[in-house]
Amino acid sequence: MGKKIKNVLVLGCGTMGQQIGLQFAVSGFDVVIFDIFEESLEKGKKRIPRLAEKMAGFQRFSKEDAEKGLKRISFSSDYEEAGKNADLINESVPEDPKLKAEIFAKFNKICPEHTIFTTNTSTLIPSMFAKETGRPEKFAALHFHDLAMTNLVDIMPHKNTSKETLELIRNFCSDSDLFAIELKKEQHGYVFNTMLTQLLTAALSLASKGVASPEDIDKAWMGVMRTHLGPFGIIDSVGIETVWKITDYWAKTLGTNQGKRNAEFLKKYVDEGLLGMKSKKGFYSYPNPKYLNPDFLSGIK
Amino acid sequence: MGKKIKNVLVLGCGTMGQQIGLQFAVSGFDVVIFDIFEESLEKGKKRIPRLAEKMAGFQRFSKEDAEKGLKRISFSSDYEEAGKNADLINESVPEDPKLKAEIFAKFNKICPEHTIFTTNTSTLIPSMFAKETGRPEKFAALHFHDLAMTNLVDIMPHKNTSKETLELIRNFCSDSDLFAIELKKEQHGYVFNTMLTQLLTAALSLASKGVASPEDIDKAWMGVMRTHLGPFGIIDSVGIETVWKITDYWAKTLGTNQGKRNAEFLKKYVDEGLLGMKSKKGFYSYPNPKYLNPDFLSGIK
Repeated sequence: MGKKIKNVLVLGCGTMGQQIGLQFAVSGFDVVIFDIFEESLEKGKKRIPRLAEKMAGFQRFSKEDAEKGLKRISFSSDYEEAGKNADLINESVPEDPKLKAEIFAKFNKICPEHTIFTTNTSTLIPSMFAKETGRPEKFAALHFHDLAMTNLVDIMPHKNTSKETLELIRNFCSDSDLFAIELKKEQHGYVFNTMLTQLLTAALSLASKGVASPEDIDKAWMGVMRTHLGPFGIIDSVGIETVWKITDYWAKTLGTNQGKRNAEFLKKYVDEGLLGMKSKKGFYSYPNPKYLNPDFLSGIK
Repeated sequence: MGKKIKNVLVLGCGTMGQQIGLQFAVSGFDVVIFDIFEESLEKGKKRIPRLAEKMAGFQRFSKEDAEKGLKRISFSSDYEEAGKNADLINESVPEDPKLKAEIFAKFNKICPEHTIFTTNTSTLIPSMFAKETGRPEKFAALHFHDLAMTNLVDIMPHKNTSKETLELIRNFCSDSDLFAIELKKEQHGYVFNTMLTQLLTAALSLASKGVASPEDIDKAWMGVMRTHLGPFGIIDSVGIETVWKITDYWAKTLGTNQGKRNAEFLKKYVDEGLLGMKSKKGFYSYPNPKYLNPDFLSGIK
């Protein structure tokens, strides 16, 4: 069933689109990265080779494969050119269901009938714009985490995704060197992020109530779980502003005191420009955060 | 300032009391393990040497120190004998605030004035029975995790714990080769367990809603966090019945649908005798659970 996938179209040339496009290209697919902004494409052209070097350094693929992969990536801001030969689309445009619906509707007119549409949305679910894709049975979520950190992906169908589509996506993941978890139902946050959100919320609540310091909370988690990062190290890496926005959104939506307190706690850091890893200061200072120092947990056995 | 701690009294010779008594003894303290049941003391006498061997095998202490430590442990079911020379008590009797209050009140009459009282309660907080200890200023929580897994402990004062007491406990932890986190306020579940509970609840909710299988949920967690265990591996290790009891208690207390669904999900396992590691079957089969097989995450990069 379905045509064998050869040409992949990645929508959006931001951080995620760059990573995803590279992964597909290194795995042997011909990749077009589409963005409406020429500026984003220019940034991508510069960043992707550096990303390839970094990921090869992490042993995620060989330098040789990285070089071959880079030659398989092209960039386009032309809908027609980008869409006409695509066998599969993965979308990483901003998290606005209307925008996603619009862009899929446009490509639905351009792409061949067999083209599979997938969304990398983090916070939305595919049924929110399945109808607008014009091909709901050929549409599902294919969601990535930070590809520099893990090749785990979530495959999440909506109720009208066909079995053939799921089978194609499953095989495509395997051919793309991805480790896929398959969800049986739609779930905001998929599997990993659903759990991570609860862990981070619990950690933030402990800190915002003044039970323990972020550093001690991280030590407690790392000391039992033997991980390289604790919850506040993770928040620094995700970005304090991003976590604040999500926390604030839910605090306002649900109106809980805990949510409000957590949002206020994060807001103080944001207001002081302490944004985490990207501003070099957050709960820790970078590039050499305390938690990477062997002293941080010295005494833990 | 308090007297230097030399004699330690551990109340309760169950799993926790055995571990804790051994840890103090191996660290050089003279330890009495008290239990009202002779049978529990007899079990402890047999199990503690095996525990010492196991923990020495994990490089938690040397075999030599283990042997010396075992000689420093005595057992007693006599309040007077057990309490009269104690410098510090750590209590691991069943989680009933009345029982804890009673036993501390008894030892308050027997122990010298300088004796520090600590509780290893997991689910209660010290202020629930601080008054009954008869020495609230010399009382705090000193809470252990599984000592075979980690030497992380929580020091948690209640509002009347004195600074001197905290200082003594802090030094005692350091002398006992423990890694202490200090809480600034009382918190049910302390630091680590507060976070773990939220993680496990999120994992259970995903499984009980039918979003993904326990195995896939564990793969998602382990694939990003690079841990040796996922949430369901952890539940197997804690014991499915224990997690069910806690989940069921909160489901009934809070009346949430999610809580009820999670409790029902766990109850099915309990009813079938699938209790986790201790019954050799739970979400996984033991002693060789799937998640320890390299194939479990083969493909994760």
